Amino acid sequence: MENFKIITSKDNSLIKLVCALQGSASARKEHNLFVLEGLRICDDASECGIKFDKLIVSETAFSKYENAVQSFAHNAVECYKIPDSLFKKISDTTSPQGIIALAKMPQKDTQINKNGRYIALENINDPSNLGAISRTAEALGVSGMILSPGGCDPYSPKSLRASMGTLLRMPIIVLQDFASGISESGLKSFACVVDSNAKSITDTAFCDGSVVMIGNEANGLTEQAKVVASEHITIQMSGKAESLNASVAAAIAIWEMMK
Amino acid sequence: MENFKIITSKDNSLIKLVCALQGSASARKEHNLFVLEGLRICDDASECGIKFDKLIVSETAFSKYENAVQSFAHNAVECYKIPDSLFKKISDTTSPQGIIALAKMPQKDTQINKNGRYIALENINDPSNLGAISRTAEALGVSGMILSPGGCDPYSPKSLRASMGTLLRMPIIVLQDFASGISESGLKSFACVVDSNAKSITDTAFCDGSVVMIGNEANGLTEQAKVVASEHITIQMSGKAESLNASVAAAIAIWEMMK
Repeated sequence: MENFKIITSKDNSLIKLVCALQGSASARKEHNLFVLEGLRICDDASECGIKFDKLIVSETAFSKYENAVQSFAHNAVECYKIPDSLFKKISDTTSPQGIIALAKMPQKDTQINKNGRYIALENINDPSNLGAISRTAEALGVSGMILSPGGCDPYSPKSLRASMGTLLRMPIIVLQDFASGISESGLKSFACVVDSNAKSITDTAFCDGSVVMIGNEANGLTEQAKVVASEHITIQMSGKAESLNASVAAAIAIWEMMK
Repeated sequence: MENFKIITSKDNSLIKLVCALQGSASARKEHNLFVLEGLRICDDASECGIKFDKLIVSETAFSKYENAVQSFAHNAVECYKIPDSLFKKISDTTSPQGIIALAKMPQKDTQINKNGRYIALENINDPSNLGAISRTAEALGVSGMILSPGGCDPYSPKSLRASMGTLLRMPIIVLQDFASGISESGLKSFACVVDSNAKSITDTAFCDGSVVMIGNEANGLTEQAKVVASEHITIQMSGKAESLNASVAAAIAIWEMMK
């Protein structure tokens, strides 16, 4: 087994760092690090070739998941063992498995493939939605996800968990200016709107080199995003429902674009 | 304004009752009552013709939402005003609006329309998924939702909130024995499974008198449910994703069945 250093104090700087990274997108940005918590997500990350800067394991997990811990340790620069009680303080879950890794934010290839089919999310606020959309996007073979800078962080613990690790594999492009970025992408852009006068998504011919834009949960797409769109499309609704859940709207849009 | 009684003690029996109803499906069953919390959901319920057994309003809400409170009070048998601090104790949300109503569980018509198109959910565990599926079902015009008794409670505060009130309007049929109930329903039943050998949902001809079955988030449909199905269908996936989120799978299935 690799050399595991012992930490016992909650005032240790690494413990404080993990708490900061769990809680805040700006801390993740500042340190260029994010948290991978749990066996499953650490496994997914290793498989994606993500190296661990630090591995932190609770005493219980150290013996309970011996083989997994050993393989994660081979992939880590530094390894730490800490008491279960201290692990609870740095965990983002109520029943922690006792395994946390810190990794550098991936430097992803930000090139848009002009023949790809993309889903673009403007200011999606709920990490569960972002995670679910990433899961759908991977399952249905989308080329990548295009994000506005104002949405929730794809490297937050909640987003990663909801995505079942797919956010680690999905090509992600963050556009500093969402509307102009879409406009300059060379892709044919479809703004998904709640407007019974817009073209039905079932009458829409998607081709290679397309992107469907989905807006914020409460407010939909911004005017800027709507203006640059090649077409406005809608998911026809009946009944009293005013709108679909954002991850459901994205799922139906991705389904129609990809099938 | 109607006559509002004052409660100030957390030991009051009504206060204790609300806490029990917020927290437990068995308490809701025992008292045949459920909780409607917030302006929006109380509005939706009033519009559906649901009468309030009790209306409980915080002091702040009493003046802040005077018109709404007055109209809810007309729809209520008994009205209560309580201090904001006490309201916080009975609320299911972190920033309560200060309005709670108790209503009798609706006695819904449990008849299945043999020409309808239904979504059937076996042991869906997550109230957010149940709520999102109800929202999709209403928006896309599904005839009703068929539930197994082992899933999460459609009258829990979380389910109602995630459904944006649609669970109050959606016809809901709970089958005491899910598989035999589906089998005896007279509907053509489609089991949605993760199996690349099953028929693709895009090749499936849905007709009036159909039901699509979606299983539990972790385990999918039970063997019993799969056995009684007229057909097994699947949402073809590419990539590494093992499965879709249950509310996404249901959305795609409903979309294909209804369009």
